[in-house]
Amino acid sequence: MRPLRTIKLTLEYDGTHFVGWQRQAHGRSVQADVERAVEALTQAPARVVAAGRTDAGVHALGQVAHFRTESTLPIDRLIAGLNALLPRDVSVRAAADVYPDFHARRDARFRVYRYAILRRPAPSALLGPYTHHVFGPLDLDAMRAALARLVGTHDFRAFRALGTPTKTSRCALLLAELTEREDLLFLTFGADRFLRHMARMIVGTVLRVGRGTLTPQDVAALLEHGGDGVGGPAAPPHGLYLIAVGY
Amino acid sequence: MRPLRTIKLTLEYDGTHFVGWQRQAHGRSVQADVERAVEALTQAPARVVAAGRTDAGVHALGQVAHFRTESTLPIDRLIAGLNALLPRDVSVRAAADVYPDFHARRDARFRVYRYAILRRPAPSALLGPYTHHVFGPLDLDAMRAALARLVGTHDFRAFRALGTPTKTSRCALLLAELTEREDLLFLTFGADRFLRHMARMIVGTVLRVGRGTLTPQDVAALLEHGGDGVGGPAAPPHGLYLIAVGY
Repeated sequence: MRPLRTIKLTLEYDGTHFVGWQRQAHGRSVQADVERAVEALTQAPARVVAAGRTDAGVHALGQVAHFRTESTLPIDRLIAGLNALLPRDVSVRAAADVYPDFHARRDARFRVYRYAILRRPAPSALLGPYTHHVFGPLDLDAMRAALARLVGTHDFRAFRALGTPTKTSRCALLLAELTEREDLLFLTFGADRFLRHMARMIVGTVLRVGRGTLTPQDVAALLEHGGDGVGGPAAPPHGLYLIAVGY
Repeated sequence: MRPLRTIKLTLEYDGTHFVGWQRQAHGRSVQADVERAVEALTQAPARVVAAGRTDAGVHALGQVAHFRTESTLPIDRLIAGLNALLPRDVSVRAAADVYPDFHARRDARFRVYRYAILRRPAPSALLGPYTHHVFGPLDLDAMRAALARLVGTHDFRAFRALGTPTKTSRCALLLAELTEREDLLFLTFGADRFLRHMARMIVGTVLRVGRGTLTPQDVAALLEHGGDGVGGPAAPPHGLYLIAVGY
């Protein structure tokens, strides 16, 4: 028997036409497409595990996943082979041999998500599926103040989807930053972990601050006293990108 | 009879799923989609004329078009109505009442096109249909030198598609600039007019200079002595954007 290798993949995908990362009974999942390509290339059954289970419509520039294989293909042939086999809306940006029991989800120590908002009167034919279109005045200073209130290690239960029990809802949000480029706003978040819909619920909440229907103090109060899932509403998935995962 | 208005539209579109601007016997054209929306909104037949007939796959951020109508709809209602009626890959960015005999194509004095090149080893799931993917070293200084040789008023017959006779192939290329942002290269061109495939043939030629198979001097010689269509080859259409039209 040939020795087992563990391969770490860095993946990019356009989430528009997927039901999300995770394989489901119906619909096209990124996981199933990647597994199919790995199986075709290595001629053996494969299970591909990702760092984060992105929702339907959510995009990735730096999703990380792993699989184990007996294949002896060199890494550059493996990248080229997978890219030749994958549909055009999924691509392998990088691959590497890693230590045998590397686990893309359990070993991840840091995740970065970015949310893109398009601010202009007209909708965008080119950016429609890749940004959340918002029109009307936004108070960016108030939005930045609200984001600053969220940074730190807190119980983020107010900013998670209901019905998704986890052992703990404590997260260390180390980065929550608002940047502008032309008519785009980017909200970038870095944390050790994200609860289900957490990034989108923070964006939805901070947009209410931008519009003046919540204050940064209200956001701090939500964080301190808010019940499960009372923040939000979640901003739509197609503005969200999984940018990077740190190990 | 109500007075006739002339409306100038600024349009954005994702060219991926179109046969191009111009209505054709088969396939989806941007012109037909815009005319259908104008007709539904104004309840009258409409003919929409654009500044430039972009090819299949070519995108637009600032295509300009006009139509004449008896409608009395205020401009902001007209923009919102058209955007509600148009498919998601075409949008109206702006509209204005202009002088009665304004003609989007004949009155245009300046056009700006941009070509986007993605430089990295792996293909991109998100940018695949929106950039030309190029890998391998490129000599950007040589590319800039070649572009500089092209600036000015010249006969650009070497850089046009064959079989497209026009009265003259003289164009005033006033801007031919190479810029970088992260792993993207942008080639931006401004001219009074562009021959068929001219922007893409210049990009294809300049990429040969970047790879070292042509020199900037060769490009100057092509411009001076080259026969019809000997430049190029044309870079693929999906990297090209019609950015703006000046009047």
